[in-house]
Amino acid sequence: MSRLDWIAVDWGTSSLRAWGIGTDGSVLWAESSPTGMGGLAPEQFEPTFLALVAPHVGPSERIEAIACGMVGARQGWAEAGYRAVPCTPLSPDLTAAPTSDPRLSFRIIGGLSQADPADVMRGEETQIAGFQALNPKFDGVICLPGTHSKWVHVSAGEVVSFQTFMTGELFAALAGHTVLRHSVGGEDWDDDAFAEAVDDAVSRPEKLAARLFGLRAEGLLNGLPAAAARARLSGLLIGAELAAARPYWLGQNIAIVGATGISGRYGAALSGLGVTATLADGDAMVLKGLIAARSNTTEIPT
Amino acid sequence: MSRLDWIAVDWGTSSLRAWGIGTDGSVLWAESSPTGMGGLAPEQFEPTFLALVAPHVGPSERIEAIACGMVGARQGWAEAGYRAVPCTPLSPDLTAAPTSDPRLSFRIIGGLSQADPADVMRGEETQIAGFQALNPKFDGVICLPGTHSKWVHVSAGEVVSFQTFMTGELFAALAGHTVLRHSVGGEDWDDDAFAEAVDDAVSRPEKLAARLFGLRAEGLLNGLPAAAARARLSGLLIGAELAAARPYWLGQNIAIVGATGISGRYGAALSGLGVTATLADGDAMVLKGLIAARSNTTEIPT
Repeated sequence: MSRLDWIAVDWGTSSLRAWGIGTDGSVLWAESSPTGMGGLAPEQFEPTFLALVAPHVGPSERIEAIACGMVGARQGWAEAGYRAVPCTPLSPDLTAAPTSDPRLSFRIIGGLSQADPADVMRGEETQIAGFQALNPKFDGVICLPGTHSKWVHVSAGEVVSFQTFMTGELFAALAGHTVLRHSVGGEDWDDDAFAEAVDDAVSRPEKLAARLFGLRAEGLLNGLPAAAARARLSGLLIGAELAAARPYWLGQNIAIVGATGISGRYGAALSGLGVTATLADGDAMVLKGLIAARSNTTEIPT
Repeated sequence: MSRLDWIAVDWGTSSLRAWGIGTDGSVLWAESSPTGMGGLAPEQFEPTFLALVAPHVGPSERIEAIACGMVGARQGWAEAGYRAVPCTPLSPDLTAAPTSDPRLSFRIIGGLSQADPADVMRGEETQIAGFQALNPKFDGVICLPGTHSKWVHVSAGEVVSFQTFMTGELFAALAGHTVLRHSVGGEDWDDDAFAEAVDDAVSRPEKLAARLFGLRAEGLLNGLPAAAARARLSGLLIGAELAAARPYWLGQNIAIVGATGISGRYGAALSGLGVTATLADGDAMVLKGLIAARSNTTEIPT
């Protein structure tokens, strides 16, 4: 049986996940908790991490961890700076976080930045590296949908340029903190309403601002069902993203890396525009990227 | 000295305002409170209103009130239905709210609706009527900026068509409930950043979705000041509204009815597009509209 070699960590704003990797490279265990770095004070990072992995490590066992995500932001455990594109997604240099427990080495992967237009990513670089590990010859565009969707042009193993869209967060803010909350409740979904809204937003992006209140008005006057309103709001926002991201998908080789539900919606939206995209699982790519980061690093953990 | 004749009331989601109108038509007093109808249960409407006006009415004095705003919504004191445009902004028929106090008559002005594109207004019809009372021959477009901005085509004394934009609420949701809250804090303002953002959004509306996260990234990478980020966010959203509302302002006679600050911004944005607009004070127009509603009604208060 394989022994624990190191721990792969994805620590974002709202969740913490860890995978125990054995000496033979297999995943021995996985843990997750809602203790995202967004809710922690600096002195809580180390005990929070140690508590999560405690069931899997002996009292005198060395603990080597490599992490990606917002844990490396200025407000995180230790700031792992941004590297400017064009560059490979991963640097051989990792940032060591300060630790009290002498058993623990905790190193963090840095993010990427772009000067013009100004943009940043943190966490997605690891998913990109994971995708590249699986598809070493990939040349094209990776779309990573989510709270902050990214469109990333990748060529010859490097990230060439990228663009961030706040689409997921915009949906949550509109659905949760405006009058539209009365119209888009529940989890039901209407595929046709989604497809029509994507098409409308892509072909008439200048009308976007005029469409939003219509969801509320159609509910009041015509009884528009929540499933249709919800799907239409999502379609309008994803359509607006696609209208603005056109140079990233037009005539390009596209891969979508993300969770199944949202990736499927982006795939359907692109399909409506005549673009075929390949889907890859976001969680699997994070883990592959963390494994790539460890084999890539030239440092010795201290 | 003039005696109290009736009470004009503007009761919106977040505030309640009342003006005592004398037998000679003068305003005898004004009261306001943050007890908007959004925070009240049905049984609280009557006591809340009576408490606000109590200092100004005798124990056996008749109280006649005419109100506009969300107090007439389905969740309000009594539902005052929508009338479909084209029609005059005010109907001679008002909706009487149920009252327990035998001294009180409380009547509510109904809203307006439009079938296609589906749209509704409630409260703005009274401001429009006030503006018409002051400018009886006005033919053109009234812009009412705010939480839900309205563009209203008025001709021959009737509302012909209108369109609602959630611009104010969208700004509040983005500035308060997304990652942009870190970038747009404070009340400072940069006029040039506003003008550039309006121009950008009007001329390249398809790029809107790509601009939003840039406010955050420019803060992180280039230290974009909050005043510029705040003004740019406002300019992008108002610009998106103007791009979608183009048929309402292109070659039209425009009046802006609203609060001074936001009206000035819309005026500046339109000016940058070569359109001159006349500004009218929103509060004054509400009061004039309520007065017009009372002289317009054929009903006898019960």
